[in-house]
Amino acid sequence: MKPREPDLIATIRRAASSNPTLYLPLGIGDDAALFAAKPGYQTILTCDWFLEGSHFLRDKHPAAAVGWKCLARAVSDVAAMGGEPRCFLLSLAFPSSHTGRWLNEFLLGLRRAARKFKCPLVGGDTTRRREILINVTVVGEVCAGRAVLRSSARPGDIIFVSGNLGEAEAGLRLLRGKGSARINKKDPALRKHLYPEPRIALGCHLSSGRIATAMMDLSDGLSSDLPRLCAASGVGARIAAAKLSAAGLTRRRDGRQTDRLDLALNGGDDYELLFTVSLSKARRLPQSFQGISLTAIGEITRQPRLTLVQSDGREETLRSGGWDPFR
Amino acid sequence: MKPREPDLIATIRRAASSNPTLYLPLGIGDDAALFAAKPGYQTILTCDWFLEGSHFLRDKHPAAAVGWKCLARAVSDVAAMGGEPRCFLLSLAFPSSHTGRWLNEFLLGLRRAARKFKCPLVGGDTTRRREILINVTVVGEVCAGRAVLRSSARPGDIIFVSGNLGEAEAGLRLLRGKGSARINKKDPALRKHLYPEPRIALGCHLSSGRIATAMMDLSDGLSSDLPRLCAASGVGARIAAAKLSAAGLTRRRDGRQTDRLDLALNGGDDYELLFTVSLSKARRLPQSFQGISLTAIGEITRQPRLTLVQSDGREETLRSGGWDPFR
Repeated sequence: MKPREPDLIATIRRAASSNPTLYLPLGIGDDAALFAAKPGYQTILTCDWFLEGSHFLRDKHPAAAVGWKCLARAVSDVAAMGGEPRCFLLSLAFPSSHTGRWLNEFLLGLRRAARKFKCPLVGGDTTRRREILINVTVVGEVCAGRAVLRSSARPGDIIFVSGNLGEAEAGLRLLRGKGSARINKKDPALRKHLYPEPRIALGCHLSSGRIATAMMDLSDGLSSDLPRLCAASGVGARIAAAKLSAAGLTRRRDGRQTDRLDLALNGGDDYELLFTVSLSKARRLPQSFQGISLTAIGEITRQPRLTLVQSDGREETLRSGGWDPFR
Repeated sequence: MKPREPDLIATIRRAASSNPTLYLPLGIGDDAALFAAKPGYQTILTCDWFLEGSHFLRDKHPAAAVGWKCLARAVSDVAAMGGEPRCFLLSLAFPSSHTGRWLNEFLLGLRRAARKFKCPLVGGDTTRRREILINVTVVGEVCAGRAVLRSSARPGDIIFVSGNLGEAEAGLRLLRGKGSARINKKDPALRKHLYPEPRIALGCHLSSGRIATAMMDLSDGLSSDLPRLCAASGVGARIAAAKLSAAGLTRRRDGRQTDRLDLALNGGDDYELLFTVSLSKARRLPQSFQGISLTAIGEITRQPRLTLVQSDGREETLRSGGWDPFR
């Protein structure tokens, strides 16, 4: 017998917070969830698609990774504002054939992510569909006036990225290229692709310390995301290929220089932070934060042009080569 | 040439509020939206799928109605808590073939609904997909402690519904049954199906006046929704077929008694309010509110059983015959 909607909601509810807090006076099961905002804070709202075929593959991505990643992606948008996640809504559509083991493993991954990011499930919507469709809304908070926008980078600011760019794309190539039996599940690139960790603590540090002038997360690839930050701020940027390669992968056997640069420029799904810092504060910024490397890759320019300076000094226009669903 | 994602976001942005208010310090285009919660209020969070094939038909439902209805459905959940909508996020996936006229008409309907419900678009996520997929998150507010839940109906409370139950289902049958040329676009049932009006003012009145003890909106049909309210409250209900027919359609030529009752019991998509009121307050409740009829259809019982009393006095168990995507 197929489970009906109330049974499924009960299954999902068991995966949610059983312990409503001050922020969450009401658990799952009513028309809507209630959230008590903290005085002196602003509420951050973000939502993200995570669709079979577009963002993950049913036969390649483990259900637990789908659960983890759908939340991690949306939480990353909150981190990119300098805020902390508080709770989330899950909209899930999936086939009746997936109400058993797949759903349980999906919810296991989701629950692990919710615990890790301190972001409980408080509501959502469930329906049946031939394909697996997911939409996640995350609600976060940030001290009033401290949100770091994309639009406030200034000429002369130094451009930083966190972590190793292109690592998630390398992980995706591993996943796509081999039969599942031959994949090393502990490969760091594969783990970064399947179980990304949004940079919540780093984002908070950069906002609460008034360190970053502008910030966004890297979801589609630097060559697509940096132009968005520059357009929002009405500025341009010069980035150095050599520095970008340094922020790329380090330990891959197949890591030729050109490939590393291409991955760092165009690889998506890293969920690292891209941020700008005034020159004086940049000099005092450490090279890492809680084990995550922070690399200066260039500077903001008044001219609204995007330039990539190659290792031999040649200058090129930076071309957007990241992920665009409409291309 | 096909438009790319930034162009589409610009198109959608033009359909959004161009006038950020106190609640909305930041418009569309950053990683996330910012929302300033009112002191003394709780934030209401709700999200709703609106999927081609499941919730609407591409060749039957006008794009403007798809835009209106995807927002109206989610706003109805806020009304059902006794709150007022404040802003919403739109997640939209659609084919490249629909970036022109379809998208413009969709956004026109959406903008009309946003204006009508005082609920501006503040953010979202857009991607390409073969099918049209929509998910809407609405953020609302309600005075702290005044939200009306499903779980607080008490034995002896009188059960009320607003409006004409089954009207939207009758409209859907019209839409499905005829060629588009033969449809009377001003038919009230068709308009209710295409352009439902969530009962925001009524919900606020029932919560702020502490009139309703429990409340939810009727989205799947009374025979499916009433059991949910009763289960949440740990109670049962006795409803009278004759009273329910009175809350059903009145002016349809095809309105035989049995059909009217069936529509009122099992018709979905009405977005009317189902609420309970203590006996003493029920006596003082007017028969309508701002032109919307309020009909007492039965009472809450201590025994957790759902009974339908037929016009001839026979008692039957109420069977859930409303919409369940997993049935």
